[in-house]
Amino acid sequence: MRAVHADVTAWMTAAGMTVRVDPAGNIRGLIGAAGAPRLVIASHLDTVPNAGAFDGILGVMLGIAVVESVGVLPLAIEVIGFSEEEGVRFRKPFLGSMAVTGQLEEHLDLTDSDGISVAEALSGFGLDPARLEEARLSPRTMGYLEFHIEQGPVLESLDLPLAVVSALVGQSRMEFVFKGHANHAGTTPMHLRHDALTAAAEWVLAVERTARETDGLVATVGKIEAQPGAGNVIPARVSVSLDLRHADDAVRVASVAALVRAAEAAGGSRNVGVAYKLLVEQPAVALDPRLTAGLADAAGVLGTAITTLTSGAGHDAMILAPCVPSAMLFLRSPGGISHHPEENVLTPDVEAALAVGVEFVRALALPTLR
Amino acid sequence: MRAVHADVTAWMTAAGMTVRVDPAGNIRGLIGAAGAPRLVIASHLDTVPNAGAFDGILGVMLGIAVVESVGVLPLAIEVIGFSEEEGVRFRKPFLGSMAVTGQLEEHLDLTDSDGISVAEALSGFGLDPARLEEARLSPRTMGYLEFHIEQGPVLESLDLPLAVVSALVGQSRMEFVFKGHANHAGTTPMHLRHDALTAAAEWVLAVERTARETDGLVATVGKIEAQPGAGNVIPARVSVSLDLRHADDAVRVASVAALVRAAEAAGGSRNVGVAYKLLVEQPAVALDPRLTAGLADAAGVLGTAITTLTSGAGHDAMILAPCVPSAMLFLRSPGGISHHPEENVLTPDVEAALAVGVEFVRALALPTLR
Repeated sequence: MRAVHADVTAWMTAAGMTVRVDPAGNIRGLIGAAGAPRLVIASHLDTVPNAGAFDGILGVMLGIAVVESVGVLPLAIEVIGFSEEEGVRFRKPFLGSMAVTGQLEEHLDLTDSDGISVAEALSGFGLDPARLEEARLSPRTMGYLEFHIEQGPVLESLDLPLAVVSALVGQSRMEFVFKGHANHAGTTPMHLRHDALTAAAEWVLAVERTARETDGLVATVGKIEAQPGAGNVIPARVSVSLDLRHADDAVRVASVAALVRAAEAAGGSRNVGVAYKLLVEQPAVALDPRLTAGLADAAGVLGTAITTLTSGAGHDAMILAPCVPSAMLFLRSPGGISHHPEENVLTPDVEAALAVGVEFVRALALPTLR
Repeated sequence: MRAVHADVTAWMTAAGMTVRVDPAGNIRGLIGAAGAPRLVIASHLDTVPNAGAFDGILGVMLGIAVVESVGVLPLAIEVIGFSEEEGVRFRKPFLGSMAVTGQLEEHLDLTDSDGISVAEALSGFGLDPARLEEARLSPRTMGYLEFHIEQGPVLESLDLPLAVVSALVGQSRMEFVFKGHANHAGTTPMHLRHDALTAAAEWVLAVERTARETDGLVATVGKIEAQPGAGNVIPARVSVSLDLRHADDAVRVASVAALVRAAEAAGGSRNVGVAYKLLVEQPAVALDPRLTAGLADAAGVLGTAITTLTSGAGHDAMILAPCVPSAMLFLRSPGGISHHPEENVLTPDVEAALAVGVEFVRALALPTLR
């Protein structure tokens, strides 16, 4: 992280910014008058183990590049490289961005796998967690912009370089357990079985069908475990995960309810019991309509093809959006690959994103000129 | 095993039998003239770890009880307690019964988890594997009868104490692997997924449906493993087991072929590849129609309600049937429970089985009187 800070500091400084590291370890470059309305352009510095080179840091670099290109404006720009977005170390994402919205204080006691707390980690890096107040956004902040790779295959499938993000989808994570009876695979005829796996399989297909039939819904069973797990024993207990996401919370909640009924139906017809629990419920976060339209307008001015997507993954913008008008611009991910060494981005797409960003910032500054 | 031999020897001796332990460790009691036609009544002495009290040994005890009850006949009866049927130690079942059909020689080099071979285990018990020829059935053997608990729920569901077994079903054991692509559960829309688990789930339901629609077929997916196995990642690779059994080999082979096509269809519609391999193929073994009818006739004479079943599990009779006319009589398993401490059998059912056995042996001896 110190090496990243050294590089980013050098680039920010070269772009004319004043650089500091805030008490949460976020690196922050500022250009423009302290009293001017402020646009924050940010993303994160960290990524996951064995990942690629673009998730997060590309958004920070594009922020610096916008500053380099945009010229002098009656608008201050603060570029932030958040210290910790992925949640790898403390199993809690968005720690860096939560510091700027005043939410990190409540997570200082979280510990990593060695028992080191967030507060201790900050102190160990030479920071003072007692001064977290200094990490808060300036009250003059009037907007937040985040560039990020899509991390999915949609833009590539549409043959488009960029998308404006309308919302970050809400998410329900659940566990379902189907409970039947273990019996001998050879001596138990089909009509006397209570097979937890065939019940679970029927439900997995219901998950797929429900998502296919509901516009904008994605639903995934990523984990399945059958016990006792012997080839010649009818499964007695099958646990399965559900990850379900939609930009409209009402659609998400109704879909979860439909899948609970589908699980009970799949179990009921086989005399298999069903239990379930909700592990995570994250409401959708809408981005700011005015800023979002501004990104689309900027693309239009430049003649850059663009579409609107929802984001199925979480981003720092999720933390910022409830506090400050926020927008996101996605760049196409070749192969939809992310969190993998082959994660990539196309140079012309980066050029297009930069041009859209510069145009967006210039247009944003116009009303403040008037 | 020595303690079991001591008890069984005492009971066999009390029933008037001459007792020996053959070079494969089978205990064998003989009554009647050495030159007389011989009926073998047998089952196994071993069971699985943490099992119940009736699997195997009940058949040996019923053999001794038949000898006690049947009186003097122009028929020799040899009761055998096979030394090793379950295959727990050497992962190869039927070692005891294979000795009496001359098939154990080819398995003497099999080793247990400590590297001890079958030959060494026999020597260690004080037996001489070089003399296995002495374990072979007498050439005068004219029939084989095995009493065994059903180990399944069918007799209980029919409210019947006994069943004549018509055949031991054939079995195919396979592994299927579905290969899709791991992708982000949030950012990959449904129509761009290659989900190995939904393909596998569709196939698991095809297995269930095929077996439900095919008379006498049982088919089970007991094992399933999804990789990478994270709730927020679309499964890239799912392996599943198949255990498929039917008394008619042609039906079994056709069902396997149909399920291979079903797997390819389930994968194909999702751009998910399918690979499969056959792990075990065991043809069905028909039991002797004359002896089987003799058991049903004996029950009829006694007014005992009886039905005909196929055996979904393997038994020593599978090894004997190709060499000597063989029959099996199943006793109801309460709750269908087996290989479990709660494995049980009802006393009136044992009395009924004994009476049928005695009547069967007497009727079998009649032609030899004429």
